[in-house]
Amino acid sequence: MYSLKELQELIHTRIENLQTGGEPKALYEPIQYVLSLGGKRIRPALCLLSYQLFNSSEPDDSIIYPAIALEVFHNFTLLHDDVMDDADMRRSMPTVHKKWDTNTAILSGDAMMIKAYQYMAMCPGKFMPEVMKEFNDLALGVCEGQQYDMDFETRNDVTVDEYLEMIRLKTSVLIAGSLKIGAVIGGASERDKGLLYDFGENIGIAFQLRDDYLDTYGDPAVFGKNIGGDIVNNKKTFLLLKAMQKAQGHVKDELEMWLKTTDGDDGKKIEAVRDIYDELGIPALSQALMNDYFERSMKALDEVKADDDLKADLKQFAVNLIDRVK
Amino acid sequence: MYSLKELQELIHTRIENLQTGGEPKALYEPIQYVLSLGGKRIRPALCLLSYQLFNSSEPDDSIIYPAIALEVFHNFTLLHDDVMDDADMRRSMPTVHKKWDTNTAILSGDAMMIKAYQYMAMCPGKFMPEVMKEFNDLALGVCEGQQYDMDFETRNDVTVDEYLEMIRLKTSVLIAGSLKIGAVIGGASERDKGLLYDFGENIGIAFQLRDDYLDTYGDPAVFGKNIGGDIVNNKKTFLLLKAMQKAQGHVKDELEMWLKTTDGDDGKKIEAVRDIYDELGIPALSQALMNDYFERSMKALDEVKADDDLKADLKQFAVNLIDRVK
Repeated sequence: MYSLKELQELIHTRIENLQTGGEPKALYEPIQYVLSLGGKRIRPALCLLSYQLFNSSEPDDSIIYPAIALEVFHNFTLLHDDVMDDADMRRSMPTVHKKWDTNTAILSGDAMMIKAYQYMAMCPGKFMPEVMKEFNDLALGVCEGQQYDMDFETRNDVTVDEYLEMIRLKTSVLIAGSLKIGAVIGGASERDKGLLYDFGENIGIAFQLRDDYLDTYGDPAVFGKNIGGDIVNNKKTFLLLKAMQKAQGHVKDELEMWLKTTDGDDGKKIEAVRDIYDELGIPALSQALMNDYFERSMKALDEVKADDDLKADLKQFAVNLIDRVK
Repeated sequence: MYSLKELQELIHTRIENLQTGGEPKALYEPIQYVLSLGGKRIRPALCLLSYQLFNSSEPDDSIIYPAIALEVFHNFTLLHDDVMDDADMRRSMPTVHKKWDTNTAILSGDAMMIKAYQYMAMCPGKFMPEVMKEFNDLALGVCEGQQYDMDFETRNDVTVDEYLEMIRLKTSVLIAGSLKIGAVIGGASERDKGLLYDFGENIGIAFQLRDDYLDTYGDPAVFGKNIGGDIVNNKKTFLLLKAMQKAQGHVKDELEMWLKTTDGDDGKKIEAVRDIYDELGIPALSQALMNDYFERSMKALDEVKADDDLKADLKQFAVNLIDRVK
C-alpha cells in the first residue's frame, strides 16, 4: 500500500517517461510540454488511493494508465482554457498558444483528449463500460462547468446556487470521477463507489470555496498568486455573490460603485471591497459553507466499507485541503 | 437488410431526433446546429453496411449509436478545422465561430468529441475494448492528418508520398475505421475486419485524389465549388506535387513563376497552371493512381467472406465515388 505522497511520486515518474512523442512533432510536442510543467498529480493519486481501498494487489498498468488518463484530461482542459482566456502563463511557463500558436493549441488539445481516452481504455475489459460511462460523464461535466463560468462573466443575475453548481461541474466532478473510477477498477460495491464519488464532489466544492477565500483573504507571502485578483476582476465568486445578496442601502450602493470601477487604484478597490465583505460577515459565511461541504465529504468517507488505516490518507488529504494556506 | 440509401435516411432521421440539447445552451446549441447542417452521412452508413455483411439482425441502438458517433466525430473535426482555417461558411451556412464566437466553437467542439465517445460507448460491452481501440486510433489519425496538412502549407519540400500519407490520415482512416467498427460489432472474423479496413483505406485515398482532380478538372456547372481554388491557393495536392516533380527547364520556371503569383488574375493563373499539368501528363497520372487505389479497394472487398448480394452496395458506393462528377 502506497501513501498519497508515494503515489504522487509514482505518477510523476510515469508521466515523465510517458511516450507521447512521435510525428507530426507540432502535434505531439505541445502535449509533452504541457505534461512536463508539473503539478501535484492530485487526480491520479486520488484514483489510486481509492483503488487501494478495495484492492491490495500492486497497482499495474490497468489502473495506472487510467489514473494517468485523468491527469492528461485535466491538463487538456487547462490547455484549451488558456486559449479561451488568452492566458500568457501556466505554472510560470508560457502557455501553448503563446509558445506555439492558437491552431497548434486547439489541435494538440484535441489529440491530448484522445490520448486520455487511449489511456483510460487500458482499464480491465470487464470494467470498461462502467469506466467509460464515468469518464464521459465527468468530461462533459467539466465542459459544462467551463461554459457556465464563461456565461457568468457577462451575466449580472448569477445566484449563489448557480455558482455552486458551476464549481461542482468545473472542479468537483473530475475529482469525484477520479475517485469513483479508482473504486470501480478496485472492485468496490455500488454503495462504496457512490460514497467515494460523494466524498470527492463535496471536497471539491470545499476546495474551490477555499481557493476563492484565499484569493481575497490569503497571506500574500504564502499564497502563490497576488491577493485580490478576483476583486479587481469582479469575478463572481461566492464572496461577491453573497455580498451582493446581503448588501442593502448605502453598502449596496458602495459595492456597486466599486464593481463599476475597473480602471482605478487596484489596491484601494481590494481594500474597500474586502471591508464591505467584512461588514456583511461574508468571511464567516464562506468558512461555514466550506466546513459544511467538508463535513459532508467526511461523512461519506466514514461510511465507506474499508480499513480505517487505508482511509487515513484520503482523510488527511481532505483535511490538508481545508487547512491549507496556499 | 437495408440499402445504402435507406441507411443514410435512417441515420439522417436518428440524428434529427438526437437529444443533444440541454443546459448550458451556449455549449449544446452549436452541436445541434452543426449536426442539422446535413451532409451525406456516409461514414455511419458505411459502418451499418459493413455490420450487415456479418449480422442479419435488425440494427439496434448498440450499432446505430456507434454509427452516429462516427458522424458526430466527423462533424466535430469540421467544427475545429473551420476555426483553424478561419472559414466563414460550411454547407452554405455560417460556421460556428462566425455565428457564435471562437471560444464557443472550441468548447462546443470539445463537448462534441465527448458526445461521440458517449455514443460509441453504447456498443455491446463485449466489443468495447476493440471498438474503443479502433475509435481512438482513427481519432488520433485524423488529428495527425490535419497537423500534416497545416505543416505542408509552410513547407516547400513536400513529397507525393508524404501527401498520400497525409490524405490517408486525414480522410481515409475515418472511413476505414467506420467500416471496421461496423464489422467488429457485426461479429466479423479478424481477417474480414482487416479487409474492410483495407477497402475503406484505399477507397478513401481514391476519393481524395478524385476530389483534388475535380477541383481542377471538374465541370463548374455540376461540381459544387468553384473550379481552380486549389491552383489559386497553391494547395499542395497530388497534381501540383507531381507537376513540380516532373517539370524541367522552362516549364519548371513557368510553374514556379505562377506559384509566386498570388495577387494576379485568378482565371489566368488557373488556365496557365492547368496547361502545364496537361503538358506534363498529370491528369492521366492522377487518374491512373486513383484507379490503382480503387482496384486495391475492390480486391479487398472481393476477399471478404460475405454474400455478394450484401457486398453489392459497398461496391456500388465505391464505383460512385470514382465515377462521380461532383
